[in-house]
Amino acid sequence: MVTVSTLGSHCALQLLKGAKDEGLDTLLVCEKRRLSLYSRFSFIDKIVPVDSFTDILQEPCASEIQDTILIPHGTLISQLDSEKIESIQTPIFGNKYILKWESDRELKEQMMRKADLPVPKAINSPDDIDDMVIVKRQGAAGGKGYFMASTTQEYHTRRKSLIADGVISPDEPLYIQRYVSGVLAYLQFFYSPIRDEVEFFGCDQRHESDIEGISRIPASNQITSSTPSFNVIGNSPLVLRESLLDEAYKMAERFVDAARRLASPGMNGPFCIEGVYDADAKFSAFEFSARIVAGTNIYMNGSPYYNLLFNEPISMGRRICREIKDAIAVNSLKNVIT
Amino acid sequence: MVTVSTLGSHCALQLLKGAKDEGLDTLLVCEKRRLSLYSRFSFIDKIVPVDSFTDILQEPCASEIQDTILIPHGTLISQLDSEKIESIQTPIFGNKYILKWESDRELKEQMMRKADLPVPKAINSPDDIDDMVIVKRQGAAGGKGYFMASTTQEYHTRRKSLIADGVISPDEPLYIQRYVSGVLAYLQFFYSPIRDEVEFFGCDQRHESDIEGISRIPASNQITSSTPSFNVIGNSPLVLRESLLDEAYKMAERFVDAARRLASPGMNGPFCIEGVYDADAKFSAFEFSARIVAGTNIYMNGSPYYNLLFNEPISMGRRICREIKDAIAVNSLKNVIT
Amino acid sequence: MVTVSTLGSHCALQLLKGAKDEGLDTLLVCEKRRLSLYSRFSFIDKIVPVDSFTDILQEPCASEIQDTILIPHGTLISQLDSEKIESIQTPIFGNKYILKWESDRELKEQMMRKADLPVPKAINSPDDIDDMVIVKRQGAAGGKGYFMASTTQEYHTRRKSLIADGVISPDEPLYIQRYVSGVLAYLQFFYSPIRDEVEFFGCDQRHESDIEGISRIPASNQITSSTPSFNVIGNSPLVLRESLLDEAYKMAERFVDAARRLASPGMNGPFCIEGVYDADAKFSAFEFSARIVAGTNIYMNGSPYYNLLFNEPISMGRRICREIKDAIAVNSLKNVIT
Repeated sequence: MVTVSTLGSHCALQLLKGAKDEGLDTLLVCEKRRLSLYSRFSFIDKIVPVDSFTDILQEPCASEIQDTILIPHGTLISQLDSEKIESIQTPIFGNKYILKWESDRELKEQMMRKADLPVPKAINSPDDIDDMVIVKRQGAAGGKGYFMASTTQEYHTRRKSLIADGVISPDEPLYIQRYVSGVLAYLQFFYSPIRDEVEFFGCDQRHESDIEGISRIPASNQITSSTPSFNVIGNSPLVLRESLLDEAYKMAERFVDAARRLASPGMNGPFCIEGVYDADAKFSAFEFSARIVAGTNIYMNGSPYYNLLFNEPISMGRRICREIKDAIAVNSLKNVIT
Repeated sequence: MVTVSTLGSHCALQLLKGAKDEGLDTLLVCEKRRLSLYSRFSFIDKIVPVDSFTDILQEPCASEIQDTILIPHGTLISQLDSEKIESIQTPIFGNKYILKWESDRELKEQMMRKADLPVPKAINSPDDIDDMVIVKRQGAAGGKGYFMASTTQEYHTRRKSLIADGVISPDEPLYIQRYVSGVLAYLQFFYSPIRDEVEFFGCDQRHESDIEGISRIPASNQITSSTPSFNVIGNSPLVLRESLLDEAYKMAERFVDAARRLASPGMNGPFCIEGVYDADAKFSAFEFSARIVAGTNIYMNGSPYYNLLFNEPISMGRRICREIKDAIAVNSLKNVIT
Repeated sequence: MVTVSTLGSHCALQLLKGAKDEGLDTLLVCEKRRLSLYSRFSFIDKIVPVDSFTDILQEPCASEIQDTILIPHGTLISQLDSEKIESIQTPIFGNKYILKWESDRELKEQMMRKADLPVPKAINSPDDIDDMVIVKRQGAAGGKGYFMASTTQEYHTRRKSLIADGVISPDEPLYIQRYVSGVLAYLQFFYSPIRDEVEFFGCDQRHESDIEGISRIPASNQITSSTPSFNVIGNSPLVLRESLLDEAYKMAERFVDAARRLASPGMNGPFCIEGVYDADAKFSAFEFSARIVAGTNIYMNGSPYYNLLFNEPISMGRRICREIKDAIAVNSLKNVIT
């Protein structure tokens, strides 16, 4: 019997419920402070308590999880650097070597160019700001510390303010991108190496604080000196205009192709292309995630688009576990893990 | 056979469909002007037409419903004061004595403090307004007449304007709270006295008019003298970042504890903690509802989070009816009604 | 065996998946450039490739589809004018003669008045603009080229700018309507001539670019000279306050009555009333669609409200196909097609 494991955060509930629905055993690596949460769910067969998620690199936790298949998600990436993730002895679902292409801004850009994804113009220096930009931090920080600016001066004012508040550090490299206004869309896909097919799972919108609150304040009451932030609080569902689906699939296929060439064995499993549709319904991609995203949590009981592909409710977590089972059935487990 | 009854508004359809799905009989107390709506649904076994919902206190309506279990919701609270609700002879699901803690602003604050919920600062006098505030009316008015203000002068201007429009009365006590900007979230729970467990059912966002429309008007076109209002029109789904769930459960458990001490027999059944996540993802609670909320209507065919707890689609209405059945099965119906 | 056909866009996936779920055969008329998208879905039994959707009027495509029932949607209306649609020899689900009442602004207004739908005031001339208005193009252009204005001068400035950009043509008639601010709601219905009943299917919100992005830009950063546009990118779910349902049903029934009198054989099948709830929760209808709308895509695995009417997940596409089967079962297919 296969046991699926993951870290207790991000989308762990969806993942382990999906595993149980597929008949697999489940194990959760859980911070002690979160035991009371995860103990509530009967589909979690075993909980391994840790002081910190970095404990998975050491005994006794390393041994506890060694016979499982570990599903990576955003928390793994934010807690362990790429080298440490690659050093994990437990088999990891998908491709653990592609995760550094998500975390490192340079590699990320290289991958997006290779996949020919339409990206907003990068601004090399704060001195070149002459229109609205968004300024981002490295890695998966959940939007905390991101800010907008329209001028070089505003950039420096807001950056200093965030340093003073201890949100970012003075020597932290920041990434400046032209701000594209429109409908934000996080496009969720699954690539199955067993079927050699890309599937469009769904689309979500993120709800970020406090930028979301600002839209509810009449313009005359907005306090102009404040710096809105982009801390992700939750997600909500979205379906796309059907005429946009073809290009979404094509971007995903180009991404899978690029990943195969740049980061062997490629983009196996779930991923997400994140961007915005402008006034001409043209998509600009500003990020990708090379693993399951938390936005899939909105579809724990199935997504509209997976309803087209499966005749039962399939979450992304369950899809992953079905891929594991499909791989075992054709004696190809090694093709879906690293 | 148990018959479940409710008033024809708010979430009556969800409640009675859930009752029927659980195999119970259903009865609706329906205003005559709404008969054409509720007659459409075959899961309503019996309709008792009334001129006004207050008729449930009198014959013949009181007798018609006396052998049922009445499910309270927001319309019951807005139509009958607490004393009248407590005088109802029909058994009420949950705890009818806790409903006054929701309706009365002083009791509500006392309960929230006892539960150690993080509340936005209350402003005692309009003279103390020195930052953005939101001004609220007593009771469950659905957001009608709420307004925002940044200064004492703006408070008086907007209040006078609403009095002139007949929306609020000159002697109506208003409640002033610091405005917390961020992602609004209405956290829906169910406490089962039979299982002695809190369940997180889901989360929704409210769509209020005309404040929602204002965000779609470019700043330069907004007419600054207008007073946005907060009349609830509908709800949409939201999932929370998983790292926020632990604190959500803990708040709910503290609330259940506080209710047990302040309002015997406690917070049995569905409730909602209503607030906002700020830029640091910290939650501020500005309200609670001590009964089912209309936001659960978005999940009439099951919620993402209940998918983790049940292997079939369960609405909040159906959950209530299952609790009734569970209670009967262990001969403890008296523990889930008052 | 009945074969259901449609054009490959808009809501084709939902329609043909629904047909297959009902046990019908499926055929898709597909632009060659979109073959790679639609070939992914196994529920599409046959694909007829075309260079352009207007090919359905000619051989060989006309013969390929002649023994099917064609389901009309927004793409059919935007690609073929009413006369051409009416000339199609293939039986069309619902009433093909009502589609011109949707496309033609004058007929549309006449129908809405006949149905006594509350419509925002039309402004006859740009010179009469004295408050916020929205300016619309004829037909189902998906919101592209719509704009807002507060003054006559702003109207002319924005119109000229859109003409210069090639979005609208200089001689294109534009329709000016008072702008009602509030919660936008697209109310989706199905009228069954077999059961002679109106069903409320659900409600959605549209996500339009780039107006949606503007709400995420702090007022002080908004560039005042830009013209927001309303290009539909996607949809998200909404449930209505239950006290609004009665009026929604009544509007729908008045619409069905009006359609029966003005456009025989009437409003058979799916339709949508599109509008906004203002601060008093009063609805203003600014449009209708006399066929399935793309907003129903959000409910491909069932809607909250259809959960009240059916004990299985029914999309609008599936509902249409069930109507076809119901009609055949009572030997009345001619009553659901034209």
